[in-house]
Amino acid sequence: MSVTAARGFAASGVSAGIKDSGAPDLALVVNRGPSDAAAAVFTSNRVQAAPVRWSRRVTGDGALAAVVLNSGGANACTGPAGEDDARAMAERTARALCVAEQVAVCSTGLIGVRLPMDRVTAGIDTAAAELSEDGGESAAIAIKTTDSVHKTAVASGPGWTVGGMAKGAGMLAPGLATMLVVLTTDADVSAPALDSALREAVRTTFDRVDSDGCMSTNDTVLLLASGASGVRPDPAGFAEAVHGVCLDLALRLVADAEGASKEIEVRVVGAASEPDAVTVGRSIARNNLLKCALHGEDPNWGRVLSAIGTTSAVFDPDRIDVSINGVRVCRDGAAGEPRDKVDLSGREVTVTVDLRSGDASATIWTNDLTAAYVHENSAYSS
Amino acid sequence: MSVTAARGFAASGVSAGIKDSGAPDLALVVNRGPSDAAAAVFTSNRVQAAPVRWSRRVTGDGALAAVVLNSGGANACTGPAGEDDARAMAERTARALCVAEQVAVCSTGLIGVRLPMDRVTAGIDTAAAELSEDGGESAAIAIKTTDSVHKTAVASGPGWTVGGMAKGAGMLAPGLATMLVVLTTDADVSAPALDSALREAVRTTFDRVDSDGCMSTNDTVLLLASGASGVRPDPAGFAEAVHGVCLDLALRLVADAEGASKEIEVRVVGAASEPDAVTVGRSIARNNLLKCALHGEDPNWGRVLSAIGTTSAVFDPDRIDVSINGVRVCRDGAAGEPRDKVDLSGREVTVTVDLRSGDASATIWTNDLTAAYVHENSAYSS
Repeated sequence: MSVTAARGFAASGVSAGIKDSGAPDLALVVNRGPSDAAAAVFTSNRVQAAPVRWSRRVTGDGALAAVVLNSGGANACTGPAGEDDARAMAERTARALCVAEQVAVCSTGLIGVRLPMDRVTAGIDTAAAELSEDGGESAAIAIKTTDSVHKTAVASGPGWTVGGMAKGAGMLAPGLATMLVVLTTDADVSAPALDSALREAVRTTFDRVDSDGCMSTNDTVLLLASGASGVRPDPAGFAEAVHGVCLDLALRLVADAEGASKEIEVRVVGAASEPDAVTVGRSIARNNLLKCALHGEDPNWGRVLSAIGTTSAVFDPDRIDVSINGVRVCRDGAAGEPRDKVDLSGREVTVTVDLRSGDASATIWTNDLTAAYVHENSAYSS
Repeated sequence: MSVTAARGFAASGVSAGIKDSGAPDLALVVNRGPSDAAAAVFTSNRVQAAPVRWSRRVTGDGALAAVVLNSGGANACTGPAGEDDARAMAERTARALCVAEQVAVCSTGLIGVRLPMDRVTAGIDTAAAELSEDGGESAAIAIKTTDSVHKTAVASGPGWTVGGMAKGAGMLAPGLATMLVVLTTDADVSAPALDSALREAVRTTFDRVDSDGCMSTNDTVLLLASGASGVRPDPAGFAEAVHGVCLDLALRLVADAEGASKEIEVRVVGAASEPDAVTVGRSIARNNLLKCALHGEDPNWGRVLSAIGTTSAVFDPDRIDVSINGVRVCRDGAAGEPRDKVDLSGREVTVTVDLRSGDASATIWTNDLTAAYVHENSAYSS
């Protein structure tokens, strides 16, 4: 269902020949209205790809007519020529669709290499001709890079729907580290309300997926509202639906992380503040030694404590508790329950840290570190 | 030569049976004076092992009679009982040597497990009986954990000597991530002068080795001065010698990093400030994607830019230059010289980043990320 689950949208995905493999590599998502309200969140990396710079500009007024997306090339670190290419993609899309030039551009693939613009522009024309209200799946497939599966999600409220697609292999992938997400809804929601719902949802979902600590130059999350349902949703219910779709897609990214053998949920509770909980969670999620240990099915709580100790969060080292898959292996900062009680044979791992310093909490999702990760990311040349 | 290169010191290393393998695991370094001046730098991890807490207390007044070190157990995250064990090691050493209880304690090995104190105390007695002015090598050998070689260095000035030993496998090792360093000198230097020379040397050497971003609970660097040469050295010359020995030992740690196939020097120049240069250097050195790429001999400058972009350092993304092994593969934030000109077949790699925002610079040393690293750190159970 993807981006065409909500009424008022058409989409398509085609093989433009950007990828040598001939796999689908160009997608369009068009908002047929009546509303063109939109919101966007971009990577906080200060090195930003040309399509991010372009899309940030074009979404500034809270309206989008369409989105053009390509895999097979990130158009990042490509200088002024790359800026021209991103603009040309938007212009070509607007012309092919006979819409205003409010077209966002999303690219993913190799960094530092220009796109084959002749193929891209021909592909845009083909994709425009193939637009369909059933094209959501095709679009989701065309934005895959190292993703093993395409990723879509849908949620509904009374009379309205939120749907979406995502690409990204848990941010474990190489120059392909990019996460691209397009959400659509037929609810009648103003741009400022879209913006607030999207930002809050991203903050506690995509922003808390930290597969390998590496941040892309191209990450983009877009939310387009057609208003085609004619329903103005309850703000809380709408925010919940957007959050639900984002969480669903985020967990699909983690589940599809390249080279990973475990999905790890790091839950930090008892923190003095939410920022403290997030900082501690990230520090644990980024600790290579711990990620290797969990890969080896070793409930190595000492590495959890080491990671916590590098943060400036509020805690007393002698009062930290750590549970791994429900077994409290560390109590008061020292050995607790016997570690051989921990069953790490499954794919899902939960590490729970109680800082015993307050009531705030946060969850970070990550993966283990494997030889396959190293192989994928060293064999790949970008 | 190690810690007994300087006059006034004796050392020993013995097999106390802490390690199941029977390899040497306990070392003593004794300052026979006439001076007992000393300085110390400890891990900034807020989760600190019991021996670190003890040694911090005992070195507070700038004097040390001796150091007792063990491998085979870190005595970290061991609660109040571990504190008692660290103190007992110091007391036993003082008694065996008939010295004041100004004895620093350094431990390395598994986290969260108590030391076999009966073996440790018996080992201290044996080590005390075997003290020798030629014992520096034995001591350096006894503090090895996953180190493939023991590490020593020496520098000299007019009439005085600085020598030292280190253990640590580039901080790439697992619960064994600890770096322990003991430096000795026969120069006649006051405790405050030792402290200032040591802090400055550590700041630009050991603190800039960032093999895997993981920081130990046990890291300790000690500098003991016997004054046995009777020479008061020129402060600048002495500081330079201490820096030289620290740099030599730090590079030996990088060269011996577990599972690594490359030694990577990240040089950041043209920074607006030294902290900016260090921040950018660390961000690059900790980027798993880049470390995989360099392992695969791929001069992936896009990943360098991605890493720089996550920092708050002063730079213009469109004015960054990156050279890899001397080839400027990125100029003005976009593709520069052809990447196939870069020869990455050797073990040594230099990544030079010019931020073109000022005159400050810094160097960070790291390693590549390899399947062997993952294997070592997932197979090992701590």
